[in-house]
Amino acid sequence: MNKEEKRMKIAIDAMGGDNAPEEIVKGAVEAARTLGVEIILVGTKEAVETALAKENAAGLPVTVVEATEVIKDGEEPAFAVMRKPRSSVALAAGMVKSGDADAMVSAGSTGAVMVSALQYVGALPGIERPMVGGAFLQLAPKTIVLDLGANVGCQPYHLVDFAVAGTVYARTFLGIDNPSVGLLNVGAEEGKGNELVKDAYPLLKKSGLNFTGNVEGMDIPFSRADVIVCDGFVGNILVKFCEGLGRVISKWLGSELKDKLAESEIEGTSSKMYRLLSPGTAVGGGPLWGVNGVVAVAHGRSRAPQITGAINQAKLAVESGFVQKLAEELEKVKGRISAD
Amino acid sequence: MNKEEKRMKIAIDAMGGDNAPEEIVKGAVEAARTLGVEIILVGTKEAVETALAKENAAGLPVTVVEATEVIKDGEEPAFAVMRKPRSSVALAAGMVKSGDADAMVSAGSTGAVMVSALQYVGALPGIERPMVGGAFLQLAPKTIVLDLGANVGCQPYHLVDFAVAGTVYARTFLGIDNPSVGLLNVGAEEGKGNELVKDAYPLLKKSGLNFTGNVEGMDIPFSRADVIVCDGFVGNILVKFCEGLGRVISKWLGSELKDKLAESEIEGTSSKMYRLLSPGTAVGGGPLWGVNGVVAVAHGRSRAPQITGAINQAKLAVESGFVQKLAEELEKVKGRISAD
Repeated sequence: MNKEEKRMKIAIDAMGGDNAPEEIVKGAVEAARTLGVEIILVGTKEAVETALAKENAAGLPVTVVEATEVIKDGEEPAFAVMRKPRSSVALAAGMVKSGDADAMVSAGSTGAVMVSALQYVGALPGIERPMVGGAFLQLAPKTIVLDLGANVGCQPYHLVDFAVAGTVYARTFLGIDNPSVGLLNVGAEEGKGNELVKDAYPLLKKSGLNFTGNVEGMDIPFSRADVIVCDGFVGNILVKFCEGLGRVISKWLGSELKDKLAESEIEGTSSKMYRLLSPGTAVGGGPLWGVNGVVAVAHGRSRAPQITGAINQAKLAVESGFVQKLAEELEKVKGRISAD
Repeated sequence: MNKEEKRMKIAIDAMGGDNAPEEIVKGAVEAARTLGVEIILVGTKEAVETALAKENAAGLPVTVVEATEVIKDGEEPAFAVMRKPRSSVALAAGMVKSGDADAMVSAGSTGAVMVSALQYVGALPGIERPMVGGAFLQLAPKTIVLDLGANVGCQPYHLVDFAVAGTVYARTFLGIDNPSVGLLNVGAEEGKGNELVKDAYPLLKKSGLNFTGNVEGMDIPFSRADVIVCDGFVGNILVKFCEGLGRVISKWLGSELKDKLAESEIEGTSSKMYRLLSPGTAVGGGPLWGVNGVVAVAHGRSRAPQITGAINQAKLAVESGFVQKLAEELEKVKGRISAD
């Protein structure tokens, strides 16, 4: 069947995530049913087949690849992946490298997925570590911030890499033609900030990207740039601060509105507010940027619908040629910066 | 009159702030009336005397000291202060140094006040720059975070200075006997983070303070330490992020509640939320920490009641012996760290 041969193949780490393997398998089968992709479930044979037996998968393009090693709770994920090349996450990544799969999806620990991506897929030329980014504030859903924690000790050129990745992302997935790029800083004027941002500023100016200068913390919720770049140390603290704030302030709102509105309305408003402040899909969601292949991370707490969603994101990333576009833009920008 | 001779003297920069000199003079006169302090208004003679004539200040301990230089709009404040030793902010600081005043208060630009404090009052031994800190989230009113922007390129020992200042502040003004100190980081485990925090960690362990290890962004709204220390780059971005978030989310709340509650109730709830997320008094309020004298900053937008409040804070700082306590604790901690 010619049609099946051309179908996109997505390898799924069936063992990664809080609800593995049941919810992972369920979400993957749903993807095979509705997204027109072929699913390769990678995991411990018995566990995956037991989970698969519960789904109505007959006739769907779903196969199983056995992982003979298991990463156990309490193992440091990054080291475990290196020691266990036949674990599900490592095998899935290997299939992306070999071309046996067009993409992989995992809800396992970000550390494990990142090391698998680097070790078994490889980074794009000039990239040392994958980047993590996205619209971390649902209140500002079109403002992409990165890095959000993968790179905690940055050099100035890292911030340029982030700017390139954010730009290509905003163009490809948000339909913004010429995304503005802001450098997160303590003041608007050039010359402000610590050594890192002072040195990154002229590089960004030379990058040929639509660099609009420094932005401040306040500019994130006000969406004053399409792409905002920062050291992963700052990004991680911001995103976790925001998550904590969402929890505390939505609880406060619940008690503030008590006896003023019906309970269901209070509940609705509080959870909307919580979601607006929650990093949600942006963090631990979507493809890792800077990897030479599509490696998509799903949140550790994902259930079947989120897994199906992550598979769809991986599919879109493959279809859009995101990896290739990012590689090309990185090369162009590096060329401009090194030219004198 | 023996009583008047012992009265605390507070020098006021009558020319600093968006509402100078009228609101500054008004707030200062109120302080002379109600706080039992003597007020020295420092400013352009005519402007101050005109403003003073509008207040009912007869018989109150208020005097005027003339400033013959003026810092104009658009001058870079820090340089202006150095070039203009007879500007109001510089003269007020000089009076703290000479003992002609026990404290000074300014609503001028933080940069100008900071440079005045350093140049004309001086820093405590071992301190290079004043520190800015406070409970930046009114939602977590007893969690002191510093530095909030005065020090954007920190060395590990700066974070120890911040921890000492926060500890003395929490003891003196919040009545917390043995404040816990957390190091803001990207993870809880020792060894996480960038070079700065990795190197600060062992120093904090040796400091003899109640150091409880790393905290994450989420721990700020949850108040998981009494004192949280970070580089001023991170602190400044956090505080401005939070301020912007407060504006955007309280506006969102207003539209979310529309037609569900009476307008006045919506207005009340939205502004409460805005205030909970606003840095308010914490930033640009209270004494600068690390200065060898009491130099209190009021918010640039202060009106008379805020000025009276800032004068009261300065009075409490003098009465509590905050500067002396901080100097002693800094010396003790530095002794412990340098001992091997």
